[in-house]
Amino acid sequence: MKKRGLFIGRFQPFHLGHYHVIKQALNDVEELIIAVGSAQLSYTLTNPFTAGERLVMIRLAILNYNLPLNRFWIVPIEDINNNSLWVSYVKSLVPKFDIVYSNNSLVRTLFTDANYEVKQIPLIKRTEYSATYIRELMLNGKKWEHLVPPAVAAYLKEIDAVKRLKILSQKDEPY
Amino acid sequence: MKKRGLFIGRFQPFHLGHYHVIKQALNDVEELIIAVGSAQLSYTLTNPFTAGERLVMIRLAILNYNLPLNRFWIVPIEDINNNSLWVSYVKSLVPKFDIVYSNNSLVRTLFTDANYEVKQIPLIKRTEYSATYIRELMLNGKKWEHLVPPAVAAYLKEIDAVKRLKILSQKDEPY
Amino acid sequence: MKKRGLFIGRFQPFHLGHYHVIKQALNDVEELIIAVGSAQLSYTLTNPFTAGERLVMIRLAILNYNLPLNRFWIVPIEDINNNSLWVSYVKSLVPKFDIVYSNNSLVRTLFTDANYEVKQIPLIKRTEYSATYIRELMLNGKKWEHLVPPAVAAYLKEIDAVKRLKILSQKDEPY
Amino acid sequence: MKKRGLFIGRFQPFHLGHYHVIKQALNDVEELIIAVGSAQLSYTLTNPFTAGERLVMIRLAILNYNLPLNRFWIVPIEDINNNSLWVSYVKSLVPKFDIVYSNNSLVRTLFTDANYEVKQIPLIKRTEYSATYIRELMLNGKKWEHLVPPAVAAYLKEIDAVKRLKILSQKDEPY
Amino acid sequence: MKKRGLFIGRFQPFHLGHYHVIKQALNDVEELIIAVGSAQLSYTLTNPFTAGERLVMIRLAILNYNLPLNRFWIVPIEDINNNSLWVSYVKSLVPKFDIVYSNNSLVRTLFTDANYEVKQIPLIKRTEYSATYIRELMLNGKKWEHLVPPAVAAYLKEIDAVKRLKILSQKDEPY
Amino acid sequence: MKKRGLFIGRFQPFHLGHYHVIKQALNDVEELIIAVGSAQLSYTLTNPFTAGERLVMIRLAILNYNLPLNRFWIVPIEDINNNSLWVSYVKSLVPKFDIVYSNNSLVRTLFTDANYEVKQIPLIKRTEYSATYIRELMLNGKKWEHLVPPAVAAYLKEIDAVKRLKILSQKDEPY
Repeated sequence: MKKRGLFIGRFQPFHLGHYHVIKQALNDVEELIIAVGSAQLSYTLTNPFTAGERLVMIRLAILNYNLPLNRFWIVPIEDINNNSLWVSYVKSLVPKFDIVYSNNSLVRTLFTDANYEVKQIPLIKRTEYSATYIRELMLNGKKWEHLVPPAVAAYLKEIDAVKRLKILSQKDEPY
Repeated sequence: MKKRGLFIGRFQPFHLGHYHVIKQALNDVEELIIAVGSAQLSYTLTNPFTAGERLVMIRLAILNYNLPLNRFWIVPIEDINNNSLWVSYVKSLVPKFDIVYSNNSLVRTLFTDANYEVKQIPLIKRTEYSATYIRELMLNGKKWEHLVPPAVAAYLKEIDAVKRLKILSQKDEPY
Repeated sequence: MKKRGLFIGRFQPFHLGHYHVIKQALNDVEELIIAVGSAQLSYTLTNPFTAGERLVMIRLAILNYNLPLNRFWIVPIEDINNNSLWVSYVKSLVPKFDIVYSNNSLVRTLFTDANYEVKQIPLIKRTEYSATYIRELMLNGKKWEHLVPPAVAAYLKEIDAVKRLKILSQKDEPY
Repeated sequence: MKKRGLFIGRFQPFHLGHYHVIKQALNDVEELIIAVGSAQLSYTLTNPFTAGERLVMIRLAILNYNLPLNRFWIVPIEDINNNSLWVSYVKSLVPKFDIVYSNNSLVRTLFTDANYEVKQIPLIKRTEYSATYIRELMLNGKKWEHLVPPAVAAYLKEIDAVKRLKILSQKDEPY
Repeated sequence: MKKRGLFIGRFQPFHLGHYHVIKQALNDVEELIIAVGSAQLSYTLTNPFTAGERLVMIRLAILNYNLPLNRFWIVPIEDINNNSLWVSYVKSLVPKFDIVYSNNSLVRTLFTDANYEVKQIPLIKRTEYSATYIRELMLNGKKWEHLVPPAVAAYLKEIDAVKRLKILSQKDEPY
Repeated sequence: MKKRGLFIGRFQPFHLGHYHVIKQALNDVEELIIAVGSAQLSYTLTNPFTAGERLVMIRLAILNYNLPLNRFWIVPIEDINNNSLWVSYVKSLVPKFDIVYSNNSLVRTLFTDANYEVKQIPLIKRTEYSATYIRELMLNGKKWEHLVPPAVAAYLKEIDAVKRLKILSQKDEPY
């Protein structure tokens, strides 16, 4: 069994597809680092939630499903807009890891080039378990709660996520 | 009467819709801070004018209509690309204010969350009094001068604004 | 009991003074956020360890003393070099909190001005429980291990901390 | 008579030496741009005041001495830490100018190399009319009020400047 | 004959159109500076190659066609996203020059405003000698080798350029 | 023989100690990359010359001593103030290399950790062949010309280096 794995996402919001990945990864590794990407972005249509709010969602999901908190590290990572530096940047902010989970081909390439083992965990219900799709459902006043862990759904209501998205979708004036 | 209001725009260029807002705002507040947003941008199709040029336009408009200069503060503000920090950033660069004028829902949300009073001044002639529309007229060789204060029109001619826009609209080569 | 507290440090390295603060804080709050400041710095004489290494030290200390991991959040925070934005920046990266623990007067001022409750936890053995002092002991080949949690001492040996410090203290050439 | 002059300072705080310069400059130029440098810095020992607070001080001084507000432009300028770009940066943020007032040799060199006329206004009471000296007096509980315009002294009391400086001078802990 | 010319491009990849320009320019100037723009970008669909790889391509082309290496300077230039500073930025990073070659109207405007002579070298086979077009051919598995110098074609194969582009074109997941 | 070596310096200015290193390195490697560090700095007391001026000095030295230009790459590198990313940053901007020449222990550590071979070339006349020492001689009006290649001495006179240093050493006013 590997010591530590790394799983990177933006978690806007954290959904059941993410949960599926981290549960699978726990079969391979003793500890999993969940890196919260684009940490500096919030209050935009595609990145509505702050890094802090996303940390909360992830921990709520872990507790919701009785996963062992002591096997996770949850770390916000800002964008640096220089792909050549990105692996080094991630490495400097998290504990040492020996395997990377990602379904994104650029992430896989960058870590492979840096001599990491990279693994794909097959996605399930890919159309529905998608943050983009969930944000659209929210904007259109449709049901979305079944696509995220119950504790995350409750939290998103507590912070009025749907209202925030609707405000962000208004395009009245450039400023 | 409130002590100070804040009005944020990009003023690319300053037009009669902006003038309408600041004139209305003067009924509410003793002093109005006009914040010139995206100050670092210039010589792009949507942000053709430098912050310095936009400061000049605003002051010319104020003088043109005999508004009292001593009731205004005009301050350039650069973008910081982090919505969570933006209110603090604006606050650090301008005098204290107690009300914000904005027709943009994100701006209203961010300042409301920071406990500011926020007010919308109804826009007039919204289709015409629009910087985007004015830049299009300029590019297409149509009449635009009647949509900005006369002194601003004269200044835009002095700095050859139409020629600059036409150059910026040419897409010959990526560099 | 308050819901969440915030404790900020650089943890270069994590020592028994830090441990004393977090143990005390747990008497006041349900959860404690440990913010790892100057996260972008590493491999300098005053900031020898990466953020990732400091995350490891903090978790090792928590486990070493059987503190409940589920009552902690450990989050790296980079410097932004603008004191007026700093509170907003911290807030965007961590879960909501209602009290701040700090013995630094600037930190206390900035959070007080932002309407946070701020509390000082009296330091113990201040001369010895000091990261600066510990780094000096390391550099001078003296005993330092008793000033940090045993698990942290072991980890610092594993990553060859003393050797790293000695290399960083060499000032042969500007480059 | 020149159309516009540029005078750059940090104004931490604005004092009678600054006042002397701007009054002299008004003899040469129709309009004077006062650029507030290091605008991004505040709440540090050498840069205690925000750009917004410094804008207020400058306007208070202008009004205090009945100088004509319509002959001034007051513009915050952030540092960019690249001397080769600095003149272009300043130029982009302010109206066109044709003369620069400065007693700093680097500023004079950079603007001279960029083909600007540069002029020195002899300083008066240089030891006392010094922001560094005034901050020291404040820290040491000595009289400083006579070294700044009365309206600035009143404002500095209103914002509790002395208390802020004392807090910033405390060096309890690195964080 | 002018002493030095400046030619700026992104060279993603270097192709025969670029070669045509530099060969023509050598008729006018003793030395030509080839500035490699957007140097910080790599591993994106429109900027697949690192600055280092582009330096290699340019030198291979020069050697391939027996152009005299001692008449060239090849310098990477990062983007700064502020058009008003860009000319000063370029000037600080390269030797002095007196003429600029560019077919891009913004580049021509910025350097003309900065009092540089600017010259257009008529492009040949503009549709084919285009980096965008070449990257499309690569992605679509079509022949592209005849559009770049033979030595560049060989190098692009050595670094597996086509495979890299195909990976970058996969849009599986936002992360 | 190794394919390519990397030698990093700030070259403020390029002196005979640097020349000694590059001449020695040519015995080991087919090609040598000379990286010009802190490229963004200029017009400061410790970094008086622009990157462009330093590129010129290096090439003048190479030609002065009839070293083969086609065995060198000369590349400016800006600082990124994050030691953990620095090796990746350098790698992205220069051609592939397999050995690093450095007498600086941090540089040696960072490249060693990144699995590069690192080599020290013994310095000669270390007290005199020092950029710091040469700048001091210049400031004090002493002889310095014999410590740099003749062509570099001529160039430094052409750009009035001594005068620039003297201006930069004046500390009249903070601005």
